[in-house]
Amino acid sequence: MASFTTLSQSPPKLLFRQLFEKESSTYTYLLADCSHPDKPALLIDPVDRTVDRDLNLVKELGLKLIYAMNTHVHADHVTGTGLIKGKVPGVKSVISKASGSKADVFVEAGDKISFGDLFLEVRATPGHTMGCVTYVTGAGPDQPQPRMAFTGDALLIRGCGRTDFQGGSSQQLYKSVHSQIFTLPKETLLYPAHDYKGFSVTTVGEEMLYNPRLTKDEETFKNIMENLNLAYPKMIDVAVPANMVCGLQDLEPKAD
Amino acid sequence: MASFTTLSQSPPKLLFRQLFEKESSTYTYLLADCSHPDKPALLIDPVDRTVDRDLNLVKELGLKLIYAMNTHVHADHVTGTGLIKGKVPGVKSVISKASGSKADVFVEAGDKISFGDLFLEVRATPGHTMGCVTYVTGAGPDQPQPRMAFTGDALLIRGCGRTDFQGGSSQQLYKSVHSQIFTLPKETLLYPAHDYKGFSVTTVGEEMLYNPRLTKDEETFKNIMENLNLAYPKMIDVAVPANMVCGLQDLEPKAD
Repeated sequence: MASFTTLSQSPPKLLFRQLFEKESSTYTYLLADCSHPDKPALLIDPVDRTVDRDLNLVKELGLKLIYAMNTHVHADHVTGTGLIKGKVPGVKSVISKASGSKADVFVEAGDKISFGDLFLEVRATPGHTMGCVTYVTGAGPDQPQPRMAFTGDALLIRGCGRTDFQGGSSQQLYKSVHSQIFTLPKETLLYPAHDYKGFSVTTVGEEMLYNPRLTKDEETFKNIMENLNLAYPKMIDVAVPANMVCGLQDLEPKAD
Repeated sequence: MASFTTLSQSPPKLLFRQLFEKESSTYTYLLADCSHPDKPALLIDPVDRTVDRDLNLVKELGLKLIYAMNTHVHADHVTGTGLIKGKVPGVKSVISKASGSKADVFVEAGDKISFGDLFLEVRATPGHTMGCVTYVTGAGPDQPQPRMAFTGDALLIRGCGRTDFQGGSSQQLYKSVHSQIFTLPKETLLYPAHDYKGFSVTTVGEEMLYNPRLTKDEETFKNIMENLNLAYPKMIDVAVPANMVCGLQDLEPKAD
């Protein structure tokens, strides 16, 4: 980024929007540094079906989209990152290195993703899939207070993602949530990738008290996760291969 | 409220939750003054189907619900206020005097609704119905910044409520939005009673630029509203009579 941007006197100011895709009950998050002259922005977990809605909002708000990020390889919807890259030149797709999928930028635990004077820090939270990460707004006086964590499917509001596909492991998920999410300040706002009951946000403190699965001991948690008796994910055979290549599988040349 | 509460040294701190009811795409809002020893709370536009979810959250968060409020007499869902009053003794239902419906507290333009050291101010915004109001968080250093306005169906995100039932008037709605909502600071966050596209919030500045109806002149707006060709509201014959009595019509003794 050009060096003149550091001359800005106003403190970074987060623009934040939570967007919902009804079909898969997916939340997409738009974040931007509004005080920066470029208004650099990023989208977390965009969905293919709502890309036009999201990009129109980015345009109306005068933002410059720089990153289209995924918390993990989704099994229930096709990511919008590939479509976004096609429609907005210069946008970089971001996913964890551990996901094994295609993207422009691969992140690992401890990495920082900057947009203007704001940043997200990457925490590895595998267990739902082997490549799940949680993006957490920065610590520090110039970063949003309370902090905000985008937990993907690692932690849902009063729930968590299933652990029976995509390299999932209940043991790993338990460890991830307890070591990487429950160690954040209690007032940290948690924004999941999905909600099915109309909730929009929770906090670390709330989930530590009321999450019906993750408040249990590890053995009980493992038993709960092994006995969910969930149906085979209906979109998985379409979504996972597509999401391994930024949602663009259909656009690639097919071998005979 | 007991006088000792004024001894509190901490500034009021808003707890805020946006909750969604899928069937009618209705947003319910939970607000509380978390710094107050009683944690007094209110719900705006609760839905009958999601009352248990909402009350459970109130309980988990340790809040004391004091008001269950409506922005207007809804035609698309039955309000949860009556059920809430039955389940939580002491809660008062609130609606505008101009709505002509039953409630414990009737409000008019300029009234203040206090919860702890926070308050909402009432603005009359008729046009969708003759009794619509917008609840706006208080102005002042101890109140949330930016301000937040709960607009009901007067102003929706990039839209507005229909004006062809319940004493609706496009002329009145136009005047209401321009005089009561668009005069708020541009950064004011606007939270509507519904959204059908997955948006959760907008701002005064955004709607003044991008609302496809209310950015037009009054005559064009009137023409738009007269030519929407909307279907007869499918819930209106059930919801309006019920909502005129806090959603409790079915519980009242029936005359033979």
